[in-house]
Amino acid sequence: MKVYEQKGFPNPARVRLALAEKGLLDQVEFVPVDVMAGEHRTPEFLAKNPSGLVPALELEDGTILSECSAITEYLDHLDGNAELTGADAKSRGYIHMVQRKIEDGLLDAVGNYFHFATDGLGPDIEQYQNKDFGERRRETALKTMAYINDLLEGQDYVAGNELTVADITAFAGFAFADFAGIETPTELTNVASWKARINARPSISALN
Amino acid sequence: MKVYEQKGFPNPARVRLALAEKGLLDQVEFVPVDVMAGEHRTPEFLAKNPSGLVPALELEDGTILSECSAITEYLDHLDGNAELTGADAKSRGYIHMVQRKIEDGLLDAVGNYFHFATDGLGPDIEQYQNKDFGERRRETALKTMAYINDLLEGQDYVAGNELTVADITAFAGFAFADFAGIETPTELTNVASWKARINARPSISALN
Repeated sequence: MKVYEQKGFPNPARVRLALAEKGLLDQVEFVPVDVMAGEHRTPEFLAKNPSGLVPALELEDGTILSECSAITEYLDHLDGNAELTGADAKSRGYIHMVQRKIEDGLLDAVGNYFHFATDGLGPDIEQYQNKDFGERRRETALKTMAYINDLLEGQDYVAGNELTVADITAFAGFAFADFAGIETPTELTNVASWKARINARPSISALN
Repeated sequence: MKVYEQKGFPNPARVRLALAEKGLLDQVEFVPVDVMAGEHRTPEFLAKNPSGLVPALELEDGTILSECSAITEYLDHLDGNAELTGADAKSRGYIHMVQRKIEDGLLDAVGNYFHFATDGLGPDIEQYQNKDFGERRRETALKTMAYINDLLEGQDYVAGNELTVADITAFAGFAFADFAGIETPTELTNVASWKARINARPSISALN
């Protein structure tokens, strides 16, 4: 398998963490895509992945998977032991719900703020500005941080006592928020403990 | 199980179609929530479902699931035969990718246009306007319609020759687009045939 990505970016981090948690890092080749130079918009990359998104996973048969939640779904089912996305109907429903709320309310909200309401990646890369919507999404990100803190009350991870894809999405979301200048409120102490818990996992080395 | 919903709305339609396709309609009680009267924002409903979203699925043990993709994930796994979301790793990855692209690029894009750039559900319900962003999302919806037409070239459904959750999301998206005044371009003939195919399925009666 090949992973087309820009190392250090929030969405590629999600796939790196999923690969590491599933013990699959040695089965992939990382292919760098220089987003800052616009390489994701070149005809060569678009021929490979028409959506122009990183990360994208290329399977041995040439199938391209994009969208982190879909890539994780694939990786998690390779060994018949779907611990990241849920082993039964109820846990699958719950984990998917929490993942989606955090993806929309934190990670994508921070992305909207960063790209639409700040200079983002600079004028050569950014194609659209909308300060009002970006600021609104910044508020959403802060509300979602508080929601995550509530989820963590009395449990180690956001969807229970084991790490799931919802934690991976949340971790990437908080990292993006730090980068974009949206500080995590210090009163969210459950989040602080949880961040330390994630940072102590061996999988975190996949980000370095 | 109970489904809290407003009949006729796009997201509730997704859950009704999933229930019908899975043969589960007779196992749920539909509880109407009058969104036009703001019932989804009352303390009574928020105590039940803090996100204030419809549809929400309440399980026998009181667990509330929201987010249509998560509700479908739950329903699809109850019988151990996940035909809507994919039976193996590769089909799961592919179906989740297509579903997510259509959810963001059509259904949610139409929603952003409708709620932010038109009068939407009227001044008592709508809380935010942003014409520029809404119009941008209208363009995204039209691009996604063309993407869906391309997907349908040579196959009956958007992720292959069987109906999946990606078709359900797309069907709700096109219905919402019709309602919001975003017409499906007549040159998208694969979409027209596919709409007829969906409308001929017995599950469609769940929307009436």
